Amino acid sequence: MIPRRLRVPPESLYPDDDWRIVETSFTEEWMGNAETIFALSNGFIGVRGLLEEARPAVESGTFLNGFHETWPIVHAEQAYGFARTGQTIVNVPDVTIMKLYVDDEPLHLPTARIVAYERVLDMREGVLRRELVWSTPGGKHVTVRSSRMVSLEHRHLGVISMEVEVDTDAPVVISSQVLNRQDSAALDERRVGASGHDPRRARVFSDRVLRAQTHVEDGLRLVTGYRTTNSGMTMSVGVDHRVTSAAPFRAATSWSEDLSKVVVTVQAEAGVPIRVDKFFTYHTSRHVPAVELVDRGLRSLDRAVELGVETLHEGQRLELDTFWERADVTLEGPARFQQAIRWNLFQLHQASARAETTGIPAKGLTGQAYEGHYFWDTEIYVTPFLSYTEPRITRNLLRFREAMLPQARERSAELSEQGALFPWRTINGEEASSYYAAGTAQYHIDADVAYALRKYVDVRGDTGILVDLGAEILASTARMWAGLGFFSPDDDRFHIHGVTGPDEYTTVVNDNVFTNLMARRNLRDAADVIEWLAREHPAEHAALARSLKLDPEEPTRWRRCADAMYVPFDAERGIHPQDDSFLEKDVWDFAGTPIDRYPLLLHYHPLVIYRHQVIKQADVVLAMFLLGDEFPIEQKRRNFDYYDPLTTGDSSLSACVQSMLAAEIGYEELAEEYFQYALLMDLADVNGNVVDGVHIASTGGVWMALTYGFGGMRDHGGVLRFDPRLPSRWGRLSFPLRFRERSLRVTLEGERVRLELLDGEDLAVEVRGEQVVLQAGAPHERQLDPRWLAPHEAPARTPVLAEGPVGSGDARGGT
Amino acid sequence: MIPRRLRVPPESLYPDDDWRIVETSFTEEWMGNAETIFALSNGFIGVRGLLEEARPAVESGTFLNGFHETWPIVHAEQAYGFARTGQTIVNVPDVTIMKLYVDDEPLHLPTARIVAYERVLDMREGVLRRELVWSTPGGKHVTVRSSRMVSLEHRHLGVISMEVEVDTDAPVVISSQVLNRQDSAALDERRVGASGHDPRRARVFSDRVLRAQTHVEDGLRLVTGYRTTNSGMTMSVGVDHRVTSAAPFRAATSWSEDLSKVVVTVQAEAGVPIRVDKFFTYHTSRHVPAVELVDRGLRSLDRAVELGVETLHEGQRLELDTFWERADVTLEGPARFQQAIRWNLFQLHQASARAETTGIPAKGLTGQAYEGHYFWDTEIYVTPFLSYTEPRITRNLLRFREAMLPQARERSAELSEQGALFPWRTINGEEASSYYAAGTAQYHIDADVAYALRKYVDVRGDTGILVDLGAEILASTARMWAGLGFFSPDDDRFHIHGVTGPDEYTTVVNDNVFTNLMARRNLRDAADVIEWLAREHPAEHAALARSLKLDPEEPTRWRRCADAMYVPFDAERGIHPQDDSFLEKDVWDFAGTPIDRYPLLLHYHPLVIYRHQVIKQADVVLAMFLLGDEFPIEQKRRNFDYYDPLTTGDSSLSACVQSMLAAEIGYEELAEEYFQYALLMDLADVNGNVVDGVHIASTGGVWMALTYGFGGMRDHGGVLRFDPRLPSRWGRLSFPLRFRERSLRVTLEGERVRLELLDGEDLAVEVRGEQVVLQAGAPHERQLDPRWLAPHEAPARTPVLAEGPVGSGDARGGT
Repeated sequence: MIPRRLRVPPESLYPDDDWRIVETSFTEEWMGNAETIFALSNGFIGVRGLLEEARPAVESGTFLNGFHETWPIVHAEQAYGFARTGQTIVNVPDVTIMKLYVDDEPLHLPTARIVAYERVLDMREGVLRRELVWSTPGGKHVTVRSSRMVSLEHRHLGVISMEVEVDTDAPVVISSQVLNRQDSAALDERRVGASGHDPRRARVFSDRVLRAQTHVEDGLRLVTGYRTTNSGMTMSVGVDHRVTSAAPFRAATSWSEDLSKVVVTVQAEAGVPIRVDKFFTYHTSRHVPAVELVDRGLRSLDRAVELGVETLHEGQRLELDTFWERADVTLEGPARFQQAIRWNLFQLHQASARAETTGIPAKGLTGQAYEGHYFWDTEIYVTPFLSYTEPRITRNLLRFREAMLPQARERSAELSEQGALFPWRTINGEEASSYYAAGTAQYHIDADVAYALRKYVDVRGDTGILVDLGAEILASTARMWAGLGFFSPDDDRFHIHGVTGPDEYTTVVNDNVFTNLMARRNLRDAADVIEWLAREHPAEHAALARSLKLDPEEPTRWRRCADAMYVPFDAERGIHPQDDSFLEKDVWDFAGTPIDRYPLLLHYHPLVIYRHQVIKQADVVLAMFLLGDEFPIEQKRRNFDYYDPLTTGDSSLSACVQSMLAAEIGYEELAEEYFQYALLMDLADVNGNVVDGVHIASTGGVWMALTYGFGGMRDHGGVLRFDPRLPSRWGRLSFPLRFRERSLRVTLEGERVRLELLDGEDLAVEVRGEQVVLQAGAPHERQLDPRWLAPHEAPARTPVLAEGPVGSGDARGGT
Repeated sequence: MIPRRLRVPPESLYPDDDWRIVETSFTEEWMGNAETIFALSNGFIGVRGLLEEARPAVESGTFLNGFHETWPIVHAEQAYGFARTGQTIVNVPDVTIMKLYVDDEPLHLPTARIVAYERVLDMREGVLRRELVWSTPGGKHVTVRSSRMVSLEHRHLGVISMEVEVDTDAPVVISSQVLNRQDSAALDERRVGASGHDPRRARVFSDRVLRAQTHVEDGLRLVTGYRTTNSGMTMSVGVDHRVTSAAPFRAATSWSEDLSKVVVTVQAEAGVPIRVDKFFTYHTSRHVPAVELVDRGLRSLDRAVELGVETLHEGQRLELDTFWERADVTLEGPARFQQAIRWNLFQLHQASARAETTGIPAKGLTGQAYEGHYFWDTEIYVTPFLSYTEPRITRNLLRFREAMLPQARERSAELSEQGALFPWRTINGEEASSYYAAGTAQYHIDADVAYALRKYVDVRGDTGILVDLGAEILASTARMWAGLGFFSPDDDRFHIHGVTGPDEYTTVVNDNVFTNLMARRNLRDAADVIEWLAREHPAEHAALARSLKLDPEEPTRWRRCADAMYVPFDAERGIHPQDDSFLEKDVWDFAGTPIDRYPLLLHYHPLVIYRHQVIKQADVVLAMFLLGDEFPIEQKRRNFDYYDPLTTGDSSLSACVQSMLAAEIGYEELAEEYFQYALLMDLADVNGNVVDGVHIASTGGVWMALTYGFGGMRDHGGVLRFDPRLPSRWGRLSFPLRFRERSLRVTLEGERVRLELLDGEDLAVEVRGEQVVLQAGAPHERQLDPRWLAPHEAPARTPVLAEGPVGSGDARGGT
């Protein structure tokens, strides 16, 4: 474990609060982080937590899931099969801007005299509210209340309200804008210039991305249709306004390609508020002309205006009530933990709720980093949560993978293989990774998709999806593995060479354990499902066999590959080497690496990193969790003991996994410490890049660490098992689950576990190895022996380097 | 051995001729190849074999060694330490253009009626001559004789002459031009478009590279000074003219930034020739302003004009007489072989003769491919020839490496090492390889430089260079190795991980045998030389120790690393694995790979290539040759037997090495066949890319294959040894050598060997293991037993795929 910095905002600025994130004053220092933390999204539309005044801002951004521009990837040195087409999510026109002028003075937070300020994200109501009192240069006091919402109920809608009240008569102007920022490049360069290169950030476009195709002006309504220059995608953005004012007002609209405006001018009277409601809508398409999307936008606005702000807010509240009922995890734990847990879950919901026909970008829709691409993050880190709380979304995500099978087949052929190879990173289904060693070489993406599919079926019991699309995905990925690997004449084992596992600090290796294990599972699942299909759904099997030209012997061959799969094992150390040559490498000089040289990827040449035993993120340890039923606890402990000290956690995908495995093997302090990193990844800016967007995989990991980790839940083979281990310093932990058409609640308190079946048929589960049949209305409750090892039996924990106050009391980390 | 295509021009077009390359008619089909084959160079100036008419041309190019433009390398995905600055040799203004108009009709070869044609490169005189008779559309016959020379004697000079004679009175115009082609980009794109991407070709510039700074017009003299936009290098190009005509003529000069012209107009009379002599000069600098270079150009032109064409031609002849005396290898062998040998040697001379203060680009100055960069090609493939024929040039090349030590130190630090790491490819000393896996990872460049240094000292006996610069190079490279590798606790051996050997079809591996062996030699040589320096030159040693902060214990540490160096060996197969995991990989499906899928790098993703046992170029086999004193013959044979069938020869650096080792282990047919590939690499376009320029390393390899290979010469430890093995179908082979201030001649005929010391002190050599003391004037001659294995003892040879006639009789390959 490498100590991480926690950059925790002071309690006075962000007080602890179970349901709300509260900002008590505006500071430029925290502004960039706050843009991410207060971002709103419904999985289709995402807006960063920008000020209504638009400036200052660190990274202005509004994103529509899947709406991207393409560009030819220029490789410094080209080679056959290198990814050709870059894809970058577009920073679309921003509707959040509501500039305010009083006495012709603009409200500008860094210089204004603000006598009261509060910005609140209430996670029950799903609305971001700000209230401030501005003492103008002319000595007037102006109260500004605004609210902003991206609708979870209505995929294409959102609404912003601003209410202004003066204590002395004054002319007030509210300029409501829709701004297409063609200046994002400049902003980007400024940041790159400051921080040096960072390969994780998004591409800068020099050409115009969006070209206006058509627009409609109608009263205070403005709708524009755009088309992207290269990818040819279309979008529309529309706003409509309702002005409520006792005093007479004028409203003037204007339109240009990059800036639509409605300017409301009022001679405001003391104590009489003026309110502007701004409804907004976004639509996108790959095929439909922009003019048609403008039309859709008009209809969306009609509905929004008809519903009105209050009804929209109510709908949002109801939607979130349902969400929290299904998903809320309650914890009586250290300070801020409940708040942070809810914020992480809220982000999961924001990222996925309406991600229909698309994937979930690595940053959700809260930032442009990683270009808005979909990675394995979704399948391995996010779908477990979704499968247990809202399986419909997992199903959509799997269907989205199915839809990209044609490109995955082409890509596999380009890489001289059969079957299908999913892209390591993509929006449109084509491989967009321009550095193959840490991209295309991660063949494990195929097995990750297959794994998520299986887990969904196990949890949901939905075998229909196997008929619909699962069998095809499994067969296509198994084929890829069967061709990629080979039987070595030396040992008659099946080997997979030249791949990169999850850990990107070691690339293009032979027999990466994670990959081989996951491929084995993929091959076996494919064989099982194809044989099951032949038995249970012969007609569908025949159709699939025809379309895939499936040889009847293929499942047998897959099983043969799986059974012969080589899994490196070092008998002397008693561990699984991460790959065939990992243990032969020199160990990284951790003692000689100051904390400010992390993440290593920004400070060392890849060749230097690759030749050492040093790990970016859990790899063998992740396999020990995902395929935990294949390994005894002693093996997991030995592997963890070996790899944990080598793991930098330079990736946000690591801490949650380390926490879960530490919990399983009984390392209480480590499990808690890693959980804290995952939990506070964004809220305490652990990796120093929260400004770039939410680490969505880590938010999923937080849920996993709570349920699988401390809850000790396992679901291998579709059987629920519990072996909880609550940290001794925590109070009650409770979470709901949906499992095979049933609702459950799991509650831990001290060494007591309580399992309740809330509805549905009886369910056999295991509690610490013993079978228990749960019946609705008859909670099962029992006392368990503690599972934690004594502190001296566990590895020493390295203290957290906290830069600000974090939590309080027990859970407070290190210095 | 993978069969290669030989694209041999028909005998009628290019007749066999011992001393000359003759083109008997103009064809567009061979035009691109001829541009390379007829290129002229003195190692500073290089002009491709372009037509005086300038069009048609496949790739117009004029190059000045080291004169380059820089540009920021844009990586599709950036990482720490990736090369930042691209360097590309500039295609400078072309002086070869002498356009001819008769009756205002231009001479244009593709459409003109040519009734006689001959273009001849005579390698004794070093002049390219063309004579043709043009039957004009008006029915007149015009005889055009031209000659072109780049002076080997005068580094900055060249001269072109054109003589025109009409058989009927006619107005004749000769337009002598200096053209700065800013259109090379367009040409380039056309070719890339046709052949797909090819990472080996040069970069295309979109901006103006050369900016005129100043110019002089004086009579028929035009001199222009330029500066490059980014690198800030300066150059001047100048021409002067002498017109000889019995009839009155007018000459008009004009100048613009990209085109200077002298247009000579004559009312020509039948039978009275008009002659225009065009003297040209080029100068370059990194620091001196262009105006100063223009001045230098004026002085060069003064001298050229004063000397006149005939004297310049005579000087050239004398220079080449000296060269051939030192370097000519005579062979009574298959048809074309003598011609081809001389052409290869001539290219070596052209590439190196005046390469003072620079390196030797991979293509010499005959093409822009590989960007005009210097690679290890020079040290390993070219300097052996130079050390034995013109050691002064080797010394210059080593001095050039010394001059880039400051950048090499910076680069080493950037890669977290001490000492110095030479760039894999460079012009200005900075790493310019934008694909690190097949670039920066080739750390063996350090050992290659050290190896060339040692060989030079062994051959020349010049220990002074060790004091001057050798000790510093050796200590700096040894330091790099000592830090790069590490002692593994598992076996207490010294391992070097994460490097790429010469074979670029396997990259970033652990313990590449070639690298480890060469590093071991480097470390030992460094320890020896530093200790020798301390003994013999204590003052210089003290100074070096001060400047390098050399710890007195360092040589001991280097020796410890060397002694513990891990050298992978597979006991079962009895071979050295190319690297630690090479033998574990699947063997490439050679049977399923059609010939048109070579070179593999243009048809398979690197990941696909890397995960198989398939070799681009000799790697272990090269080590068996370079460090041949460390291995018994049986070991060499076992290694060759294993690797030869895996070697595609997709690199031109392979065939000569395979030939030498095949010769050593007694495989007559293979040795001959590989020699033929190397010998005809360019003349028969073996790799299909001769249009891009001469494969200079292979030309050096031809000399090595003749002397080391068939001559059986070895020089390990500075002792000359001979164990010749002349192919049974060849007649006499004879070559001269310079060795430690002596001249020798080696002559083989059948099984007879004759060694003559032509001058200098007695010399002890070995002939097949027996010591012989050579004395001047007393040739040693003896009969030896044949060394070749019987054909059935050697591996089967795969027939050459010849597309045109090649040689004749015995040596003719396959079908």
